[in-house]
Amino acid sequence: MIQFFAPDIAENPILPESDSQHAIRVLRLGVGDRVQVVDGKGNVYDCIIAEPHQKRTLLSIVDSRPQLPHWPFNITIAVAPTKHLDRMEWLIEKMVEIGFNRFVPLLCRHSERKELKIERLQKIAVSAMKQSLKATLPTIEPMTPISQFIKEQSAIESQKFVCYCSDEITERLVLAEQLQPLRDTTVLIGPEGDFSPDEISATLDSGFKAVTLGDTRLRTETAALYSLSTIHVVNQLSR
Amino acid sequence: MIQFFAPDIAENPILPESDSQHAIRVLRLGVGDRVQVVDGKGNVYDCIIAEPHQKRTLLSIVDSRPQLPHWPFNITIAVAPTKHLDRMEWLIEKMVEIGFNRFVPLLCRHSERKELKIERLQKIAVSAMKQSLKATLPTIEPMTPISQFIKEQSAIESQKFVCYCSDEITERLVLAEQLQPLRDTTVLIGPEGDFSPDEISATLDSGFKAVTLGDTRLRTETAALYSLSTIHVVNQLSR
Repeated sequence: MIQFFAPDIAENPILPESDSQHAIRVLRLGVGDRVQVVDGKGNVYDCIIAEPHQKRTLLSIVDSRPQLPHWPFNITIAVAPTKHLDRMEWLIEKMVEIGFNRFVPLLCRHSERKELKIERLQKIAVSAMKQSLKATLPTIEPMTPISQFIKEQSAIESQKFVCYCSDEITERLVLAEQLQPLRDTTVLIGPEGDFSPDEISATLDSGFKAVTLGDTRLRTETAALYSLSTIHVVNQLSR
Repeated sequence: MIQFFAPDIAENPILPESDSQHAIRVLRLGVGDRVQVVDGKGNVYDCIIAEPHQKRTLLSIVDSRPQLPHWPFNITIAVAPTKHLDRMEWLIEKMVEIGFNRFVPLLCRHSERKELKIERLQKIAVSAMKQSLKATLPTIEPMTPISQFIKEQSAIESQKFVCYCSDEITERLVLAEQLQPLRDTTVLIGPEGDFSPDEISATLDSGFKAVTLGDTRLRTETAALYSLSTIHVVNQLSR
């Protein structure tokens, strides 16, 4: 099944340019063909092509329904982006497939990357959402200083974890063992050079639990994906 | 910490060319500098550089020890390789970081890729082993017809799972719920066009359990990595 994306379909039943091109030029769909469209806000629309157009295909909505959420809680993953952008692009694709709600790129003391253009990451997220047949587009925030993120999180009722490499500060527990199912969850992953001691103290003071993902050394993007997988596995086991 | 790889160090305490280059030209190490070397067979060697050389650096072994296994059982992941090779390369890097023992690329009826050169995958595995500070190099098999793999597996005492997309053949259970910790485990992941009905029957007849990874559609390489993560999380939870 191929799924299309039209964020404004409720007000304006038109396939945007890239999806119109794909439907009309690549797939050669025409008047009367059925297509499934999502709005990225959790809704699925069964449609019929009313007026095919390479840039603005007009749709006729036959039926619409909210997609049942794949996981009934909020997942926020905050990561200090890697030096190589392709590792972040890969991470976003995989995270969207597996499922999360909000990605926050963190600016840390030891960040190897201080700037991040999120437009390309957002495009990758749209593509992965369509490919994995989801109806909700996760939020990708702009680069956020870690102090600001911690402050914002202190107002949120969520179980919060910080993963880091240094053995110095406190005894760390394994994330899988600490996670409670069916609760909003936030996981923080540090930069390649790890969080600074000040940053770790600030997260712990703010209610984050220090955790490890196991006794193997993972790259930043692998740690982020493994922690997301851990959240889903723990929830699969709780059903 | 930087780790080097010398597969024959026990008989021949010399850093091979690429690692000698890295140690001497890039890191500018010299006589008397300490280095940590692994043999890919599970052993760690503390060494001192005796004679630096850009192609054949002679080492003096100070101490050696077997590395405690990160997981005390065998993990085999068998995957029909994707059309795009970079997705397989990425998968091998991430699987080595997270940890497994054996990768078998499967030739299936609907495989989009019928040939696979494993030399590059092996290089990526070596690099990820060093980066993630492991002492054991996983095995990467050559392309194997699925019928041959199933036959070989029927002689092995292991819990065996096959992940596929089709809903037609049998009710599937969630992998996380079916896994028993601390047991040798084999997981089969089908091609982008899924296994053929014959292939699925053959795996089920041979003792594989049909499982799903959840209710989201994952790409082949994402499914392989998620199933590997599931194995580790279930084992982390059993400790």
